[in-house]
Amino acid sequence: MAYRAPVSQMLFSMRAVAGLDAAIEGGLYPDLTTQLVAQILEAAGDFAAERLEPLNRPGDLAGLRKDGAAVRTPDGFPKAYQDWISGGWNALPGPVEHGGQGLPILVNTACVEMWNAANMAFALCPILTMGAIDAIEAHASPDLKERYLEKLVSGEWTATMNLTEPQAGSDLSALRTRAERADDGTYRIFGQKIYITFGEHDLTDNIVHLVLARLPDAPHGTRGISLFLVPKILPDGSRNDVVCAGLEHKLGIHAAPTCTMSYGEAGGAVGWLVGEENRGLACMFTMMNNARLAVGVQGVAMAERATQRALDYARERRQGRTVAYTGQGMVAIAEHADVRRMLSSMRGLTEAARGICFLTAASLDAAGRAGDVEARKAAFERASLLTPLAKAFSTDIAVEVASLGVQVHGGMGFVEETGAAQYYRDARILPIYEGTNGIQAIDLVTRKLPLSGGATVRAEIARIRASATRVTKEADERFGALGPRLREATMRLDEATAWMLAALAEGRQDDVLAGATPYLRLFAMTRGVACLADEALAAKAALAAGETDPAHEARIARARYMAEAHLGETEGLARSATAGAAALPAADALAV
Amino acid sequence: MAYRAPVSQMLFSMRAVAGLDAAIEGGLYPDLTTQLVAQILEAAGDFAAERLEPLNRPGDLAGLRKDGAAVRTPDGFPKAYQDWISGGWNALPGPVEHGGQGLPILVNTACVEMWNAANMAFALCPILTMGAIDAIEAHASPDLKERYLEKLVSGEWTATMNLTEPQAGSDLSALRTRAERADDGTYRIFGQKIYITFGEHDLTDNIVHLVLARLPDAPHGTRGISLFLVPKILPDGSRNDVVCAGLEHKLGIHAAPTCTMSYGEAGGAVGWLVGEENRGLACMFTMMNNARLAVGVQGVAMAERATQRALDYARERRQGRTVAYTGQGMVAIAEHADVRRMLSSMRGLTEAARGICFLTAASLDAAGRAGDVEARKAAFERASLLTPLAKAFSTDIAVEVASLGVQVHGGMGFVEETGAAQYYRDARILPIYEGTNGIQAIDLVTRKLPLSGGATVRAEIARIRASATRVTKEADERFGALGPRLREATMRLDEATAWMLAALAEGRQDDVLAGATPYLRLFAMTRGVACLADEALAAKAALAAGETDPAHEARIARARYMAEAHLGETEGLARSATAGAAALPAADALAV
Repeated sequence: MAYRAPVSQMLFSMRAVAGLDAAIEGGLYPDLTTQLVAQILEAAGDFAAERLEPLNRPGDLAGLRKDGAAVRTPDGFPKAYQDWISGGWNALPGPVEHGGQGLPILVNTACVEMWNAANMAFALCPILTMGAIDAIEAHASPDLKERYLEKLVSGEWTATMNLTEPQAGSDLSALRTRAERADDGTYRIFGQKIYITFGEHDLTDNIVHLVLARLPDAPHGTRGISLFLVPKILPDGSRNDVVCAGLEHKLGIHAAPTCTMSYGEAGGAVGWLVGEENRGLACMFTMMNNARLAVGVQGVAMAERATQRALDYARERRQGRTVAYTGQGMVAIAEHADVRRMLSSMRGLTEAARGICFLTAASLDAAGRAGDVEARKAAFERASLLTPLAKAFSTDIAVEVASLGVQVHGGMGFVEETGAAQYYRDARILPIYEGTNGIQAIDLVTRKLPLSGGATVRAEIARIRASATRVTKEADERFGALGPRLREATMRLDEATAWMLAALAEGRQDDVLAGATPYLRLFAMTRGVACLADEALAAKAALAAGETDPAHEARIARARYMAEAHLGETEGLARSATAGAAALPAADALAV
Repeated sequence: MAYRAPVSQMLFSMRAVAGLDAAIEGGLYPDLTTQLVAQILEAAGDFAAERLEPLNRPGDLAGLRKDGAAVRTPDGFPKAYQDWISGGWNALPGPVEHGGQGLPILVNTACVEMWNAANMAFALCPILTMGAIDAIEAHASPDLKERYLEKLVSGEWTATMNLTEPQAGSDLSALRTRAERADDGTYRIFGQKIYITFGEHDLTDNIVHLVLARLPDAPHGTRGISLFLVPKILPDGSRNDVVCAGLEHKLGIHAAPTCTMSYGEAGGAVGWLVGEENRGLACMFTMMNNARLAVGVQGVAMAERATQRALDYARERRQGRTVAYTGQGMVAIAEHADVRRMLSSMRGLTEAARGICFLTAASLDAAGRAGDVEARKAAFERASLLTPLAKAFSTDIAVEVASLGVQVHGGMGFVEETGAAQYYRDARILPIYEGTNGIQAIDLVTRKLPLSGGATVRAEIARIRASATRVTKEADERFGALGPRLREATMRLDEATAWMLAALAEGRQDDVLAGATPYLRLFAMTRGVACLADEALAAKAALAAGETDPAHEARIARARYMAEAHLGETEGLARSATAGAAALPAADALAV
């Protein structure tokens, strides 16, 4: 039941949904061809399947070993990491001037999916490094860039993000880690951070910690937070005053260390300021779109892997017979209607989420690469709008799909040896970290809907409507109710959006927040099925052009199924999104 | 964050939903008063909270130890079991003539919920014993009853159900375990069974295995299966030829042994026939309503426990501020709209599932106790109809609620020490065992809808409609849209039911099976909210009568919230239920 990197489907989605061809033709991706993209994805898929996947279950079983101050990753992880960076995979999206390959985020997104599908615990580490590269590149002094970027881009060193403290999780204004100015222009950091992913490990010689802390004279709240770079090993080769004080015992990702980090227990950890004093949160926000997208992609990865494993099992496992079955003995359970329904939802939700992630990635690329300022701004706002959808929807469906994957396996799903249970455990972190999905929903309604006075969201809805219209115009019976259902859902999204914008304008913050999560799901489900509709249209065109790949018929069937089976939920979601805060029982009422 | 047995809510639900008062007045429960029920529940709740809950996390951590042929349960389990049976708790629902207390299934159902909420791994063992008691009582010879029932009723011995084999899971026609007739009227059993819960343990001296096996001259398929009683210790005190060959390494319920059992490796395990030869499956079906209800109740238990823990955490954990908050510092996260929404759904889904389980239990009581034959038949059919809802809906929502419970905890939810993750792991078995939820849905549409030519299901829908009408008539603005939403959902259920009955009549088996799962959810969600509506009406009456318990206002708010936030999904469910098999992609299309 080995992992098969879905390279041709990814490429198809990049072209049909995320505009890869147009981006290449428009000069956005210089030196890139679809053929080259395919080659890169094939090579990444091979590495993922052959080198990372075999370490996944052993890593889950072995877990981590704390050995004094050191943390030992499972057997095979250090070697695999060295091979992975030697292959240039860490440097793929990195800036060319610091040794990176400067490839588009879209291409890297597909690679990130494959690393994570094969071994999420392993692949989590570079996500943090890539986020740190973004922050350092955008905000650090030339000196710091010179000293750290090249080795982070190559992957010779890794990086961490230190935000959370016991009393400061979703609300960073409460954080207490403090920074003191030293005479030499550096700082001394004191405090404890929790949930630091790969805060300590044996993959590399050095680890670069980005730490949020407060200066003695800083203003209260989030406007008094600064960002510091605190390396494990100082430039002179000595050990900095930072240690891993403990590892969490977690539900999943057992091979990824989640550390409590102690700074300054022996006089102060040496740190360098990144960006300006008291502007640390803004620096962190710079990289948030990318990091949140990456977590969304982890969701796609878990969903893809769980779907593949369930499908393999369902095609092999035989139980009972179906009405249509005329063969000997029992039929593969994949033929049973109820199992087909589960597998169809798993596959469809996964593809919808991937479409959203690819759209987000392509928008980020355009935001950084488009020729004129207006286009860059529009693309950046589109990426900003789509990012909470990519993060929250993909990770919510990852948990749902992983749970369905266990169900398809029946009793075998509850037994750890099949591997289905590991995805169910691993995936559960995704709706939580990098901003809980509740925080994503709040971000969507309070910060993203108002972008350009609502024009950004309205443009997105117009694109969805255009997809629905194109489907309807085809009047192809293979599309079933795809057109009408998508049009209906778009209308609901449009109305709920107008309601949200009005509520924001009227200052009805409570009403907006009460509906944020169902609104996000309504938006993402509609956006996701529109991605599938675009794929179905492209598949139809390919069939008409004489292509015979059976995947094309499958794409049409998938879009239809998702519209008919999943867009129905948009009615209830639209109602909940616009019900207002008065519809929610008070917290007191829940306690009796 | 200790478990608080929800005794007053259970009692309220028994009265407002499950007709406890009428059953007592009508003589169905002789010698019972609501006061006595309350006392029993209080005592059970105390035992659960004080003796079982403290062993739950230690048991999860310690797991089981296989020691040669023996299986050691975690520290404290054997003692707790002895105390539990000494308290008479195992004997609560058992037949009086074999030492049981003969209490109603409804009362025992509430107790089963409490044992499982406190410690599901522990509480799983007696569920199997109670199922075996039902089967032995209904089908075994007087001699076998004499020899085994008293000790199973007291709990001095436990029992197991041996159905599954590697190649025979949901489809038992494929089973291969064989039975040979011996000269003395006993049988010799040979074969291997898997997933045998508490197949071996150290809680009791003897274990009574009920084993499905095939006689040499048995017809093929399920009509050639016989049921045998195979004790671990033979009547002469010697060890029978049955051993635990291995334990599964599972996602959850780590303290409950899941055994591979080998029969007859040393000449044949001695077994006694239960019921007639080749009628074993019918004997198993006898106890299935009860056992499936019990698993549904485990779902309610997990949901209740996860809700309590999330609520406790959310009331303690402080982050950020709300618009309404005027206090110092940060606000409890239970005040945030998005967290309130999660907690409201957790609480509402739990209560809806409990209502369905109580209704099912009361119907089973009436089926066994009502005065005239017609009433018993009607009650039995009602219980048969409700059982798949009780099993599948309660266990599906258990997984959803446990997952929301993790989410409410944020990062702490992914860390095992908070306990939220254990419920997420433990609950995942519930939609699988005792007939997967897909099997439940198939049972509902193909076997339960046709009962009495459809009159049974139509009567149930009429009851739901009556609840909706009563709510609407009250015209109480505290009910919000409860009346219209429930009426709308009832109409959808009615139409989908008519579609199902027509499809069955026309022999469109594939269409029926394709919609079975969404139909079950549509039915259960509507039935569950109708239970909450009945509670809201009773709560309103109690307030009008001068009662001041704040729980009454909460019941009204809960019913309203569930109708407004969750009945919307019935639109999509009704569509999916009636979409037919053609709407499902073919299995081949999923593989490309």
